[in-house]
Amino acid sequence: MTDSVINETERRREATETSLKQLGSLIYEQIQNREFPWIMMQSRSSDNINYDDELRQFILGDRTVRRHSRNVRNIRPFTQFLWTAWFARELVRLKKTSTLREVYYSARGQRDIEFTGQTESDYTITDLEVALNTPRESMNIYPKDRGAIFGDLNIEYTFPPAYEGRMKNLTDNPDGAPIGRSLTSSKLVDTTADKVIVIEKDAMFSRFVEEKVHEKHNAILIQTEGIPSRSARMVIRRLNKDMGLPIYIFTDGDPWGLHIAMVIISGSAVAAHLRGLTTPDAKWIGVWGTDVLKYKLPTENLTEQDLKRLKEIKDDPRYVDELWQREIDIFLKMGKKAELEAFSALGLTYIVDEYLPEKLESL
Amino acid sequence: MTDSVINETERRREATETSLKQLGSLIYEQIQNREFPWIMMQSRSSDNINYDDELRQFILGDRTVRRHSRNVRNIRPFTQFLWTAWFARELVRLKKTSTLREVYYSARGQRDIEFTGQTESDYTITDLEVALNTPRESMNIYPKDRGAIFGDLNIEYTFPPAYEGRMKNLTDNPDGAPIGRSLTSSKLVDTTADKVIVIEKDAMFSRFVEEKVHEKHNAILIQTEGIPSRSARMVIRRLNKDMGLPIYIFTDGDPWGLHIAMVIISGSAVAAHLRGLTTPDAKWIGVWGTDVLKYKLPTENLTEQDLKRLKEIKDDPRYVDELWQREIDIFLKMGKKAELEAFSALGLTYIVDEYLPEKLESL
Repeated sequence: MTDSVINETERRREATETSLKQLGSLIYEQIQNREFPWIMMQSRSSDNINYDDELRQFILGDRTVRRHSRNVRNIRPFTQFLWTAWFARELVRLKKTSTLREVYYSARGQRDIEFTGQTESDYTITDLEVALNTPRESMNIYPKDRGAIFGDLNIEYTFPPAYEGRMKNLTDNPDGAPIGRSLTSSKLVDTTADKVIVIEKDAMFSRFVEEKVHEKHNAILIQTEGIPSRSARMVIRRLNKDMGLPIYIFTDGDPWGLHIAMVIISGSAVAAHLRGLTTPDAKWIGVWGTDVLKYKLPTENLTEQDLKRLKEIKDDPRYVDELWQREIDIFLKMGKKAELEAFSALGLTYIVDEYLPEKLESL
Repeated sequence: MTDSVINETERRREATETSLKQLGSLIYEQIQNREFPWIMMQSRSSDNINYDDELRQFILGDRTVRRHSRNVRNIRPFTQFLWTAWFARELVRLKKTSTLREVYYSARGQRDIEFTGQTESDYTITDLEVALNTPRESMNIYPKDRGAIFGDLNIEYTFPPAYEGRMKNLTDNPDGAPIGRSLTSSKLVDTTADKVIVIEKDAMFSRFVEEKVHEKHNAILIQTEGIPSRSARMVIRRLNKDMGLPIYIFTDGDPWGLHIAMVIISGSAVAAHLRGLTTPDAKWIGVWGTDVLKYKLPTENLTEQDLKRLKEIKDDPRYVDELWQREIDIFLKMGKKAELEAFSALGLTYIVDEYLPEKLESL
């Protein structure tokens, strides 16, 4: 692969830098024109968030809001916004990364910028994402690392600078490669795998590596450590869209497992302002309610909270397809749930030796 | 290095297998002698846990308890204990690993073994650790992976079998290598580093890698993701004891940061039955209360819970040294705490460019 992939990464970086510069120029011009500076952006209040059937994700509607600096009440948030944009520009220019928390504390070192808490600084970073239509990761602002990847995939680092151009094969560490800043910003070069298996939990990921699922099923393995980070969702999307690999998702058979799968497939309402985080063609392949019955898995009872959550997602537009509706109904009817590890009751390697091949076969 | 190091790993594995076999033989003999089988082990009730000034960790006292199978009430836990020992032996024999949760679910597949919940199964595994004086990790039973390591350290894998004998240099992934099952069970072969810096948080670990602390300070970097896993504590100990490297620990300047440092140095009461998890010569080097004042760091107020915790550890035998007592007093007097990220207020790289060199110099 592939010029298109390589260029994609570079393009994103340049696009971000250009957007940040344009934002600066706009403000600068306004000031030169003796205007109080302002910007327009899409509103992200809940009545402006709609589900788009074609994109299969939530998007922001047409309503816009204006952030301006014309009165005393608005000057403070506007200044915070500009400082955050400046800080992001510095990160990109200097090829440095930062966390949300470091951004917050960096502001605390600035006179007159200080945020009252990290919530406010995070909110301002989201404003910047909306204003630029760009995820913060492209501005080198990352959350805590979460998740890992393993399999015959060659990547080329673009970050940190000392590693630029260095190649790596992701079978080289049997504990997996963390989905950190360097992995996330690397070029996906080529692979012999013909599918990606995404697993909710590191324990089952270790089992899959140990039992050589990557070889037996010619797969790249990813574990998300619960709800996948946006970095993990971006990597999964690139494996699907740029490398053409089908994505299969394994989660616990409970409402939280369904949610984890759906966040990968169609994203969440809080990221309605962003594209490039979802993988609508990814398939949730287990643990289904059907599986719980078929394999007679040991179960736990659904809690009150589980039941409430299942009923909520039954009416959620993202879960409209037949498979989801069927499985939600089965869980509700059983009143039971089962974790991935429940397969251990049938033998430690049953999930890999029997269940997984049957499941992949049946698709 | 390294004959001693290599042999250490092999020795541990063989010792575990021998202990498990001996346990089985003992029970077998008892049955052949027409006795109801029983075993003796040290009591781990709180009145049998004492702090040992020489070992600088909690240890179990001389009081023992007898687990037997002579009456109906005892048969069930004794059978669970034996099944768990058998399962551990299978793991070691087959060179497979497992998680605490998988052990629990594996038991659920066995008629008449079933645990009422994972708490019971975890408790039984701890019984087995006490009976054999062996950490569960040596029986291939692991918790969730946590933490990462980075730096010029060559390791040789011993697990999984397909990776046995394969070498790896831990600078090869700028996101770090997870402290997973393969890293934990690998041989530490050699290093050019002359120290180890342990950091509580992945964000600051990423900062340290990005700013090349490993090169500038000739250090191996470890991040523990909060309270270090036992695997991380074992790796830190081996770097200190087997490779002779001094260990420096950086945590948030708050009672939880102090606790994280102390768990590395002297362990915890719940692991009083185990050796090989502590590094008494490791040094906690920040964020001290002294640092908060000297560098005028942005702070948060201590909460009620923080104050309570600080007063508790002031009387804890592990914190008896002058440094700890001084710093606890400063935190109590200030009524403030500061995170590692607070240094960002002085500039994103201040912690690396100014604070760290000054701190290492001052030691």
